Amino acid sequence: MDDLFHPLRVEVFPESGLIAPEQSTNRTARHLSDMRGMYQDTQATEAMIAAADPLLYQLYSADIPDAVPHLLFGTTILYPGKVGNEYFMTRGHYHQVENTAEVYYCLRGSGYILMERRDGQVSAHALERGQTVYIPPGWAHRSVNVGDEEFVFFYAYPGGAGHDYEAFDALGFRNLVVEREGQPAVVPNPRFG
Amino acid sequence: MDDLFHPLRVEVFPESGLIAPEQSTNRTARHLSDMRGMYQDTQATEAMIAAADPLLYQLYSADIPDAVPHLLFGTTILYPGKVGNEYFMTRGHYHQVENTAEVYYCLRGSGYILMERRDGQVSAHALERGQTVYIPPGWAHRSVNVGDEEFVFFYAYPGGAGHDYEAFDALGFRNLVVEREGQPAVVPNPRFG
Repeated sequence: MDDLFHPLRVEVFPESGLIAPEQSTNRTARHLSDMRGMYQDTQATEAMIAAADPLLYQLYSADIPDAVPHLLFGTTILYPGKVGNEYFMTRGHYHQVENTAEVYYCLRGSGYILMERRDGQVSAHALERGQTVYIPPGWAHRSVNVGDEEFVFFYAYPGGAGHDYEAFDALGFRNLVVEREGQPAVVPNPRFG
Repeated sequence: MDDLFHPLRVEVFPESGLIAPEQSTNRTARHLSDMRGMYQDTQATEAMIAAADPLLYQLYSADIPDAVPHLLFGTTILYPGKVGNEYFMTRGHYHQVENTAEVYYCLRGSGYILMERRDGQVSAHALERGQTVYIPPGWAHRSVNVGDEEFVFFYAYPGGAGHDYEAFDALGFRNLVVEREGQPAVVPNPRFG
């Protein structure tokens, strides 16, 4: 039992998903150059990096100890855009401690949550404001912005769960979310032949 | 690892906090008669029970297994009103597995979250839309509606944590939230003193 950690109120701005900087010293900002090789269209990737290296998403984490038995929470802000015909997405990960779950509550915008398991099972859920997605233990997760504005959600998961990104370095997720005739479509990743 | 539980999308209506009934078969509705003895003003309590026995709050839980390693989530909808000068509140509890945390994200209205530990430490945080409160392991928690509309929040905590309500049967929480000159005030509970 952590006897020292006191209750905490954290300001989440519901329109932007931002958390006051003094309450979120643990922030991550990922540009396209941080995701080389993850989009199918490597030419578009390199051209966009050379032109402006766009910011794809930011993660804000409340300042809670990243350890059992705490609950970590914060917001993900995923910007609108595409690389080739693939919508901006997060890197995606399993939890290192795979026997841990996560929950998302959507604050703004419109996206997809791609999930998959090591046994090959896949799942894709569209997510809009007011909708919640449950990510059960053992399911890797990646979020994708398919709208014209920021896709913002509140997340919570157990402290100490950690992140395993490397599982997706070689082939990526089994599904992609691409634009087809102006609409988002969840399609199989051709790298999985 | 639970191999069988699949990802789930749950519709939370952000204005009302309601969850579609087919996605929340585990619901709790508490009327004032379920909370006899918990408000200071026992005469007002009995008169209100006799007149209408008002509904004080409802809990909606998404249909997730209540067991490790899942995360449970849902909404609390606390209606506006007072019993004597004490605002409508939830029963309040420790987790049975005390070494577990919880997080609230406020969707609507205005309230207080009272917290306390078995060693006597107390905490009170006002909570409004867009604000998050972290309930660290070991802190009992009770929510109080101090506004004129529903106080609604999204919650998440670990499956299997359970509830210990009995700790508060005799004396209640160490703090009360009462109306003083038209404003909410957090005051010591006279039963402790």
